[in-house]
Amino acid sequence: MKNLLNNNIIETHNKKYFSSHKRDLDVFKNFCLKNKLNYQGIKKKILKFKIALPSWGLGTGGTRFGRFPIDGDPLNIFQKIEDCSIVNKLVGSTPSISPHFPWDKVTDYVELKEYAKSFDLNFDLVNSNTFQDQEGQKYSYKFGSLTNNDVKIRERAIELNLECIRIGKILGSKGITVWIGDGSNFPGQANFSKSLDLYLKSMKKIYEKIPKDWKLLIEHKPYEPSFYSTTINDWGTSYICAKELGPKAKCLVDLGHHLPNTNIEMIVSRLIFLKKLGGFHFNDSNYGDDDLDTGSTNPYKLFLIFLELLDDRNKKDFFNLSFMIDQSHNVTDPIESLILSADEILIAYAKALFVNKKKLQFFQNNNDPIGATLELKKAYNIDVKILLNQVRIEKGCAIDPKYLCIR
Amino acid sequence: MKNLLNNNIIETHNKKYFSSHKRDLDVFKNFCLKNKLNYQGIKKKILKFKIALPSWGLGTGGTRFGRFPIDGDPLNIFQKIEDCSIVNKLVGSTPSISPHFPWDKVTDYVELKEYAKSFDLNFDLVNSNTFQDQEGQKYSYKFGSLTNNDVKIRERAIELNLECIRIGKILGSKGITVWIGDGSNFPGQANFSKSLDLYLKSMKKIYEKIPKDWKLLIEHKPYEPSFYSTTINDWGTSYICAKELGPKAKCLVDLGHHLPNTNIEMIVSRLIFLKKLGGFHFNDSNYGDDDLDTGSTNPYKLFLIFLELLDDRNKKDFFNLSFMIDQSHNVTDPIESLILSADEILIAYAKALFVNKKKLQFFQNNNDPIGATLELKKAYNIDVKILLNQVRIEKGCAIDPKYLCIR
Amino acid sequence: MKNLLNNNIIETHNKKYFSSHKRDLDVFKNFCLKNKLNYQGIKKKILKFKIALPSWGLGTGGTRFGRFPIDGDPLNIFQKIEDCSIVNKLVGSTPSISPHFPWDKVTDYVELKEYAKSFDLNFDLVNSNTFQDQEGQKYSYKFGSLTNNDVKIRERAIELNLECIRIGKILGSKGITVWIGDGSNFPGQANFSKSLDLYLKSMKKIYEKIPKDWKLLIEHKPYEPSFYSTTINDWGTSYICAKELGPKAKCLVDLGHHLPNTNIEMIVSRLIFLKKLGGFHFNDSNYGDDDLDTGSTNPYKLFLIFLELLDDRNKKDFFNLSFMIDQSHNVTDPIESLILSADEILIAYAKALFVNKKKLQFFQNNNDPIGATLELKKAYNIDVKILLNQVRIEKGCAIDPKYLCIR
Amino acid sequence: MKNLLNNNIIETHNKKYFSSHKRDLDVFKNFCLKNKLNYQGIKKKILKFKIALPSWGLGTGGTRFGRFPIDGDPLNIFQKIEDCSIVNKLVGSTPSISPHFPWDKVTDYVELKEYAKSFDLNFDLVNSNTFQDQEGQKYSYKFGSLTNNDVKIRERAIELNLECIRIGKILGSKGITVWIGDGSNFPGQANFSKSLDLYLKSMKKIYEKIPKDWKLLIEHKPYEPSFYSTTINDWGTSYICAKELGPKAKCLVDLGHHLPNTNIEMIVSRLIFLKKLGGFHFNDSNYGDDDLDTGSTNPYKLFLIFLELLDDRNKKDFFNLSFMIDQSHNVTDPIESLILSADEILIAYAKALFVNKKKLQFFQNNNDPIGATLELKKAYNIDVKILLNQVRIEKGCAIDPKYLCIR
Repeated sequence: MKNLLNNNIIETHNKKYFSSHKRDLDVFKNFCLKNKLNYQGIKKKILKFKIALPSWGLGTGGTRFGRFPIDGDPLNIFQKIEDCSIVNKLVGSTPSISPHFPWDKVTDYVELKEYAKSFDLNFDLVNSNTFQDQEGQKYSYKFGSLTNNDVKIRERAIELNLECIRIGKILGSKGITVWIGDGSNFPGQANFSKSLDLYLKSMKKIYEKIPKDWKLLIEHKPYEPSFYSTTINDWGTSYICAKELGPKAKCLVDLGHHLPNTNIEMIVSRLIFLKKLGGFHFNDSNYGDDDLDTGSTNPYKLFLIFLELLDDRNKKDFFNLSFMIDQSHNVTDPIESLILSADEILIAYAKALFVNKKKLQFFQNNNDPIGATLELKKAYNIDVKILLNQVRIEKGCAIDPKYLCIR
Repeated sequence: MKNLLNNNIIETHNKKYFSSHKRDLDVFKNFCLKNKLNYQGIKKKILKFKIALPSWGLGTGGTRFGRFPIDGDPLNIFQKIEDCSIVNKLVGSTPSISPHFPWDKVTDYVELKEYAKSFDLNFDLVNSNTFQDQEGQKYSYKFGSLTNNDVKIRERAIELNLECIRIGKILGSKGITVWIGDGSNFPGQANFSKSLDLYLKSMKKIYEKIPKDWKLLIEHKPYEPSFYSTTINDWGTSYICAKELGPKAKCLVDLGHHLPNTNIEMIVSRLIFLKKLGGFHFNDSNYGDDDLDTGSTNPYKLFLIFLELLDDRNKKDFFNLSFMIDQSHNVTDPIESLILSADEILIAYAKALFVNKKKLQFFQNNNDPIGATLELKKAYNIDVKILLNQVRIEKGCAIDPKYLCIR
Repeated sequence: MKNLLNNNIIETHNKKYFSSHKRDLDVFKNFCLKNKLNYQGIKKKILKFKIALPSWGLGTGGTRFGRFPIDGDPLNIFQKIEDCSIVNKLVGSTPSISPHFPWDKVTDYVELKEYAKSFDLNFDLVNSNTFQDQEGQKYSYKFGSLTNNDVKIRERAIELNLECIRIGKILGSKGITVWIGDGSNFPGQANFSKSLDLYLKSMKKIYEKIPKDWKLLIEHKPYEPSFYSTTINDWGTSYICAKELGPKAKCLVDLGHHLPNTNIEMIVSRLIFLKKLGGFHFNDSNYGDDDLDTGSTNPYKLFLIFLELLDDRNKKDFFNLSFMIDQSHNVTDPIESLILSADEILIAYAKALFVNKKKLQFFQNNNDPIGATLELKKAYNIDVKILLNQVRIEKGCAIDPKYLCIR
Repeated sequence: MKNLLNNNIIETHNKKYFSSHKRDLDVFKNFCLKNKLNYQGIKKKILKFKIALPSWGLGTGGTRFGRFPIDGDPLNIFQKIEDCSIVNKLVGSTPSISPHFPWDKVTDYVELKEYAKSFDLNFDLVNSNTFQDQEGQKYSYKFGSLTNNDVKIRERAIELNLECIRIGKILGSKGITVWIGDGSNFPGQANFSKSLDLYLKSMKKIYEKIPKDWKLLIEHKPYEPSFYSTTINDWGTSYICAKELGPKAKCLVDLGHHLPNTNIEMIVSRLIFLKKLGGFHFNDSNYGDDDLDTGSTNPYKLFLIFLELLDDRNKKDFFNLSFMIDQSHNVTDPIESLILSADEILIAYAKALFVNKKKLQFFQNNNDPIGATLELKKAYNIDVKILLNQVRIEKGCAIDPKYLCIR
């Protein structure tokens, strides 16, 4: 994909499909009119919707069994920014990058910010990495970071987070996501309550330094890298911590961080109910934290999650949520995967917008599950491709960008 | 729904939508032409496709915690046939009913067959119930039926199956499905190998009486009603039994009979590979054998299963497979649920037919997961409603029958 | 088991084993002395420990596929009390029964209380059943009870709970457990937040009537009878509701009410941390809410749960927790199962008491998982049978009561 | 642990505990006599039992998120042999090491064999690694090894296996275990049947070169490193492949390679029934292929697995099975973990040997789950430490070696 954007590739591509698109759009608008669907209102919302790209997602991912990098894997944050710009030029809804420290450390963050700006990109939430030792690191995170028994190691982990905040302020970020792998592998290894206590103590020190207009997102995960217990393991724990910390602290939902059979959309609803939903890490999974491409195995689930996000209780907050892709691109070109994933997210969002919520509520209030499910399916079965193409055209981006990915 | 079919409801309904449908159909045909999709060929296949309705699915289902029947629950197999006829008149692809014995016992099976015929319905596979004691039953299935330690109880269970075969022959069935709940609730309660031995011994006696043009389907399930071990618990066990019994024995896949995170489409592929796939029980599930409405929670999964069924290795056998709905309608009108479910199955089948298999193979052979996934999504995102409506019109059935369900 | 207690069976039985027991006890006491284990202190705690028996557990259980009752199933609460008394005479740690209404309704609750008293039994927490319609019931719980859209049905469900409280007061209960099956089977069927709102509203009306010295326990469960969403589905939801209601409201943990792979002992720890743990429903499970006999498939898990209960943070509250067995005896004599289960619970408790917590903390503080796991195993591998027999002898109960169960 | 064996540590240690052990042994023998337990027969079997150590298990393990090595991690196969010898000197039942290629490649395998022999160690099954590219590797396994679309890559993977066989012959191994990570991450990426076909074709070429007195073990795993489909994903697939290949091919069961809630002991039973059980990879897990220490989270499960292995149908084959530990020691000293794990395996084996199988069969035949479960628990609750210490003493090893691990 690297060279995709030479030679006006978008223009050439769009020219080829434009007349066909225009005809399709007329049909689609007619369809909306006939079915009393608010084409303009929905388009406006999609135009406004933004998804952040993860800096670590630009390189080839892997498992503990190995990694198979492709040629052209970006070597540093500057190259990652260039790759992000390719995605965003095609897709148009991914104008920001979420950096990870110390992985993305540079000497001059003002320069970094300017570099991103030169590609019309800005910085989304910063991420702190305390689940891994860096070369020459004096204190090890082997037995925990923010919850480590050793106050020196906890302080080091806190300091890394504070550094992230300082960097983030320079970069123009508006928040930080904290995920820790702290936990245990053996029954008896850790005292759960003590760990949680230490976590809260450490997080309070971080919270103190969160700027007024920032948010602090807590990301939970049931297991991996710890395989018996994990300190921040579920939404309940995430919530009580966010509650304890204060109004700037919220919960982040990663779609792959749940036990088998979890009703994720209900967790989304709970956090909205509690006014503690802060954002998302989008991906898909079949078994655990597989970090597969968003929407690649269960697109209906993604649609249901967006449906929850459109609940009246979330109206004011929807556009304040942080939406981010978090995937491990083990067997694909990361740029291609990110283009497809952004598209899948927009598809789910658009379809959810087409649900007639008044009618849905009518069926809910009248205990009519068949009516309710039909209302959902009606919206879900709408082919929203044309609408998304129109959004991209209006943003100067590509018609059907994903088809540019096929060799 | 009971009175739906009075007063030419289909005619009236179709008249209302016909001109709109015709316009849509032209658009759809054009779309197919432009994209080189074989509209006529695909339509022909869908016209030929048949799904059986389960006699026990016509009444309100329930759980161990209770059952909430609706008014008008059919009281016997004759009334169930009437209900099936409503479904089939609207949907057109469900011309048969699968009976369950002893539940559906009558005194005159010739009369029963004639009664079904008078509604243009015939009988699909018969099912034997040996997981439940009937009133006044001398020998109990509490500790197993075909695998019971007591030879008298095994013989009784075998005899019920033989009776099913005799009845099925009168009814015009072409096969029998055997599901047993035999298993254990405590480690140590049963000897797994002995149980499997007894199962095979019993099944051989049943197999002997299977008519030449019949099939014997083995249905596996990991748990429930037994909660520690189940004799026929997975596809592997089902396969070795079918293999041992002979060519008329095949495996049935119920979509809800799998452990969490199972890749069901791979099981379908395995059984095709081994030439032992016999048929399906369609439903959907989130947790276990939930018996929810087909396609209601994960429609993409259903599409992927049909994609496997269209594999070249299954070409000859596809139309010999037994497709059946098996659901528990706990909170809906069974007739409405069956109409929706039949529609969901046709949607998945139609979409799978639209996959360009040559291109898919190209991407597979060239290790291009992005290309492959796009090929699947392209087909999956086609709105096939118009095509299915056309199929129904050609069968004298209803346009968009599911919308007749909304009160 | 019914006739077990005729003819001084315990006395005769104990006489047979007494001298052997005395020898074993000396060995065990010596072992404790040598290993600095506080024999007397631990025995005292076990003597004090109490487990309630569930009135519904005395009859044969079943699944949606059938029920296979044994001869002598108790027909009413009076007969259930008699059965409980058999269990308690043998076991000695089960002096109370937990009734379920309307199942256990009688005309005279004073008489009922006296009847129980005549067997040295008293009444534990009352349970309200709003997951099932009773014959002739005007308003149906089909679409929910405390969360039903219809205010009349909600009021009816509230009223049943208030009735339970009134009855419980007469019976001498000190609390009520509320489990509802409310939820949905289809995406879209219910608005999660609205349901939770209605739940809280209803529960507040119940909470108002909770006597000062009572507790109100909220029991969560992820699914069944609802298979898409459940209103009170996890500990997080249970907690926020208990928090909202007030100090008398606490959370009950049923060991089978968790998604696959859940770390239940961590949930126990969380609720202790939050001062909201109220009690337990003991059972065992392999797949879902199997309601198998406690400790029958994973006794180490039970031990780990008790270890959490012995955490310093729970010291003051331990003996205020409500411990109850909640099982479905599908293939066993309920009396036998309850005897075994009570024994398994005591075994787990006793083993947990033998853990040297000082040493465990040392290993935890020094990041020594091997040391910690060895400390656990050391206690777990102690055969505590002799100690439990001594406890039973001191209570006038049977030595090794479970061996009385073998025919 | 490295320096543990200096200065006659075992002798000193044993001297300290010997008189106490002798007293305990007398008590234990008496207990056996009184309860008609065959002390001598069981001891003889345990003396004979052998567990192989995995060469890769001697170094610190890790996850995709990081690895935290300890000082003294062995740098090569020679150092790993030294570490194995420490384990075996203490434990006595682990006289062999299972090498992994190309990881354990050396220039002179005769020398390697001699080196192991000098520590009284020999070589167990060889393992081929085709799930990872080695530096400078021409053909990549990114899209599969034995099932790769590219014949050149398949041949390379076959050749590595043949090389393993050649090396294994020099080392005195008697078999090879083949585990591949081949699979796919996206629906549509791979054709399941084609992959299985290619697998069989490749394996046949390997099978041809298997020496007469060797076995070829197939290891299945449901997922990881592939997260949508895995070619050899379950026991059913493993079995049909072993069957197709021939009598030398058998199935290996890794305790962590199963979907949630799988009844692993039933799979063991099935493979015994089919005469295709070849061996084990022991470990424990809570979520997936966690590779935790054997018996650390569910010791009763391990006991149940050994109970299946003692089934009459497996009598002749038991001592021909390959028992191996396969763990990832992420937070412990590998030597300590291996000592504990070997002990846990022996404990489970010993306890299973104490089950009175005649009585168990009686209860099974009489449908008495309570009797059966009590028979199991009776054996499980025996503290077999004394017996295992006696076994170790007779082998010149340490009394209670695991307590040597505590700092």
